[in-house]
Amino acid sequence: MTASSDTGEPIFGTLAVIGIGNLGSSVARAVRKYGAVKRVIAADLSADALNRARELRLADAYVEQPSKAVAEADIVVLCTPLGAFGAIAQAMAPHLKPGAVITDVGSVKGAVIAAAGPHIPAGVAFVPGHPIAGTEKSGPDAGSSDLFVGRYWILTPDETTDRAAVEKVTALWTRCGALVEEMKADYHDKVLAVTSHLPHLIAYTIVGTAFDLEGQEQQDVIRFSAGGFRDFTRIAGSSPIMWRDIFLNNREAVLEMLQRFSEDLTYLQRAIRWGEGDKLQELFTRTREVRHSVIEAKQDKPFPEGGNGK
Amino acid sequence: MTASSDTGEPIFGTLAVIGIGNLGSSVARAVRKYGAVKRVIAADLSADALNRARELRLADAYVEQPSKAVAEADIVVLCTPLGAFGAIAQAMAPHLKPGAVITDVGSVKGAVIAAAGPHIPAGVAFVPGHPIAGTEKSGPDAGSSDLFVGRYWILTPDETTDRAAVEKVTALWTRCGALVEEMKADYHDKVLAVTSHLPHLIAYTIVGTAFDLEGQEQQDVIRFSAGGFRDFTRIAGSSPIMWRDIFLNNREAVLEMLQRFSEDLTYLQRAIRWGEGDKLQELFTRTREVRHSVIEAKQDKPFPEGGNGK
Repeated sequence: MTASSDTGEPIFGTLAVIGIGNLGSSVARAVRKYGAVKRVIAADLSADALNRARELRLADAYVEQPSKAVAEADIVVLCTPLGAFGAIAQAMAPHLKPGAVITDVGSVKGAVIAAAGPHIPAGVAFVPGHPIAGTEKSGPDAGSSDLFVGRYWILTPDETTDRAAVEKVTALWTRCGALVEEMKADYHDKVLAVTSHLPHLIAYTIVGTAFDLEGQEQQDVIRFSAGGFRDFTRIAGSSPIMWRDIFLNNREAVLEMLQRFSEDLTYLQRAIRWGEGDKLQELFTRTREVRHSVIEAKQDKPFPEGGNGK
Repeated sequence: MTASSDTGEPIFGTLAVIGIGNLGSSVARAVRKYGAVKRVIAADLSADALNRARELRLADAYVEQPSKAVAEADIVVLCTPLGAFGAIAQAMAPHLKPGAVITDVGSVKGAVIAAAGPHIPAGVAFVPGHPIAGTEKSGPDAGSSDLFVGRYWILTPDETTDRAAVEKVTALWTRCGALVEEMKADYHDKVLAVTSHLPHLIAYTIVGTAFDLEGQEQQDVIRFSAGGFRDFTRIAGSSPIMWRDIFLNNREAVLEMLQRFSEDLTYLQRAIRWGEGDKLQELFTRTREVRHSVIEAKQDKPFPEGGNGK
């Protein structure tokens, strides 16, 4: 932890947040609430999102083009869908301030590093990151200043990354309440394939399966959704473009986990067909332990106790 | 709606609840809070559960054996796991009061009717039922008097069921805040296979898949569970025996829906492998509409606005 994170001094001067949706607006809210930077510039190619951010007074300045936002920025936080990272990095590269730090909140790290990394000029540090936090809602209204409190925020620098920049980014998100950890990009992508990408893929699938039922049945699936389906519709209500990009950019890890999942599902399918109740009960007892572990790790609620304010 | 449901008079005299877990204790709490019966007898073969129910003062009397509980009961509500229904119906049959009504909260209706129905003596009405409500927690402490407020409660009588009994059971659960609907047992089982049984099966599977990862990866799956996996662990924390019984008793409908789900998952798997982002985005956009429908139907939260008290 740096001195500035102890004393409460701002850790960076000007922060530019590129993309002011759920995560981007949460970053803007959090760094201001916790005094982590002196000034926030919000950039978003959507005029609607930018206007809404202005109405919500989320930043000190508002621009459409990322290239305009970064000229004065000491830290740039990429919060757009993953698919845009390469083009944005390329567009903003000539305008970056020497000594600036770039980081991001993308859910896949290997592909992001490959897409954005080559465009980052010498003298600018790139510290890839990913907060394990968020909700299914989209847009500037969906953010929260406490979204990161008690949540893990993973950084995936490699041996070439400037250590001073990593320390400052660590201090920045620690100030916002996050538990910052470092790991290798490919390990991150593998773990997240299980904890986030596969759950989303499956939720999207089952909601689609239900959607394809006919007439009355489809209506009743909605009406009687409180028995478990409800939770899947929540997950499957997440941003379509953000999630399209995640699957396309973490293809190998997702396909590998999906293969394991399919094998396990076939095992249960067979147990149901042949009435093997002991196999079902044995698995359901083991999975219950996992739930207890999640509760012990205090990762069972969307927001920490008492904190959900904007 | 009967007169008694309008006037606030109790709808039944003595209610016996068989099984005082999450749903059974919610039934006991609800009928007392809303003055739907005069007296509640709780039965549970688990001495621990029964003692806890006594400490919580959930009922007016407490007995271990279902056969002891039903002698004075005007209405009997079966709230045990499904697998016990046949044996319980058989054991209590000789002790039932003439004119009594039996109902249940089982998540499968066809198999329950087949198992319990033949044991019900002449002069006693059997009205199969299922509230689309509940949480993943188990035991007498987990219940809530408002669990059924704003939730659907499905009854599946057939053409032989006594209509007066159906009306009284309808009035009972309406008084507790539920939206009571009638449908055919096999239709119920098919819809619930999609909205509840398949989501649980899939949640159990994915949590099991994650559990089988090795060492550090398994730990990190817990620590970084906030990205979607968390919700699956909640569902997969449900009672193992209750859910074993549901799958074994709704085998055909679950296997049919599982087949459709697997086809749809294979379609998405192929789209990811071949980088077909348009197919992913198209599905994710459709599923988002389903989420909006669930919110419009006010089925998106575990408890209705403001109500979650015991």
